[in-house]
Amino acid sequence: MSGHPSAKGEDNTREQLLDAATALFAENGIAATTIAQIAAHVGVTSAMVHYYFKTRDHLLDSIVEERIMRFDTRLWELFTGSEMDPIAFIKAFVARLIEGCETMPWLPPLWIREIVNEGGLLREKIMQRIPIDRQEKFRDCIAGGQKRGEVNRDIDPRLLLMSIVGLALLPLAAAKTWKRIPSLEGLGKDDLSRHVTELLLNGIVFSSVDPVADRKRQNRKK
Amino acid sequence: MSGHPSAKGEDNTREQLLDAATALFAENGIAATTIAQIAAHVGVTSAMVHYYFKTRDHLLDSIVEERIMRFDTRLWELFTGSEMDPIAFIKAFVARLIEGCETMPWLPPLWIREIVNEGGLLREKIMQRIPIDRQEKFRDCIAGGQKRGEVNRDIDPRLLLMSIVGLALLPLAAAKTWKRIPSLEGLGKDDLSRHVTELLLNGIVFSSVDPVADRKRQNRKK
Repeated sequence: MSGHPSAKGEDNTREQLLDAATALFAENGIAATTIAQIAAHVGVTSAMVHYYFKTRDHLLDSIVEERIMRFDTRLWELFTGSEMDPIAFIKAFVARLIEGCETMPWLPPLWIREIVNEGGLLREKIMQRIPIDRQEKFRDCIAGGQKRGEVNRDIDPRLLLMSIVGLALLPLAAAKTWKRIPSLEGLGKDDLSRHVTELLLNGIVFSSVDPVADRKRQNRKK
Repeated sequence: MSGHPSAKGEDNTREQLLDAATALFAENGIAATTIAQIAAHVGVTSAMVHYYFKTRDHLLDSIVEERIMRFDTRLWELFTGSEMDPIAFIKAFVARLIEGCETMPWLPPLWIREIVNEGGLLREKIMQRIPIDRQEKFRDCIAGGQKRGEVNRDIDPRLLLMSIVGLALLPLAAAKTWKRIPSLEGLGKDDLSRHVTELLLNGIVFSSVDPVADRKRQNRKK
């Protein structure tokens, strides 16, 4: 294998290298993964990785742009701004987040390890790219719901996004460990999706009146 | 500095080394921290670290036993078993968890990096030490509350502990980043504690009837 790849198959190799790098970074961490490992995963030489991505830093940029931010865009495409219904948006957002992680299982471990972590190697790159005004519009959307009496006034709109990420991604990042914990036996992604949505919307306290959910509940009082 | 330390001051040096190791591991990760850095942090030689802890693995065991599991014990000492009031326990647990992280700021980053993370270097050690029957009793405590009509039947008792950890520890692990995000301006640990407790108990949907909280709420209907 030498020289430049043919135009045909070029895109394909590049995509395969991005996929391999993303998977290896999620599994072993960015710092512990070499270019040679990424190349070997696809069955090409290290020179080929350099041909497509020039530097290690450029490879990281490509993963951020073409993998993580693409996921982020899809996650947020339903958000139309601060005027939208916060409850409906959160339901759809959680569903997309957990579904997305099923087809992109590298996301939760990579997010926790390289973005949330102190010293995570993608933290700066992600912080530069996440639109500040979108965070502010989301916060205003929640605050608007509080003013209209649709959203619990005692939760903090500034913290809600982190809460959703923590509720959904932390268990998914540890999903490989689930089967080793007896009390988590039989747990699946659908259980997680239902649980996270229900906890976010209604909390753990049994409430005899639920103004949003259309399920019937026993009208039982203490 | 050479030879064995005097009996006096011995305990103190050992504790200082444990504190230094814990702080450095939380900040830079276990794999990236050398014995020489830990020694330098306390102002002793690497030989002194070996004198107290013999091997690197023994140092990790000491941190797990004397730092992390000590925190874990304090967190759970209020839990009397599957018969206790789940709501009261969860309130107290969240308060202790967030308070504890204030005096032990190394806990959230260390937990996320070395326990939740795929390949975290403390995961196995922690999994061996967390009592399985306690997890099961907690699950039964929640399920009991569901049977009695005190706890929302649509949440999953198997997942609740991970939810609490995700809600509280993920934002704390990223706390240094808060001040750089404009929409999180002015956020403090008390805000987090209130928000997490309220979200866990009552969720984001405004509910006109709240059978547990004794606050007055507007009885407003859509």
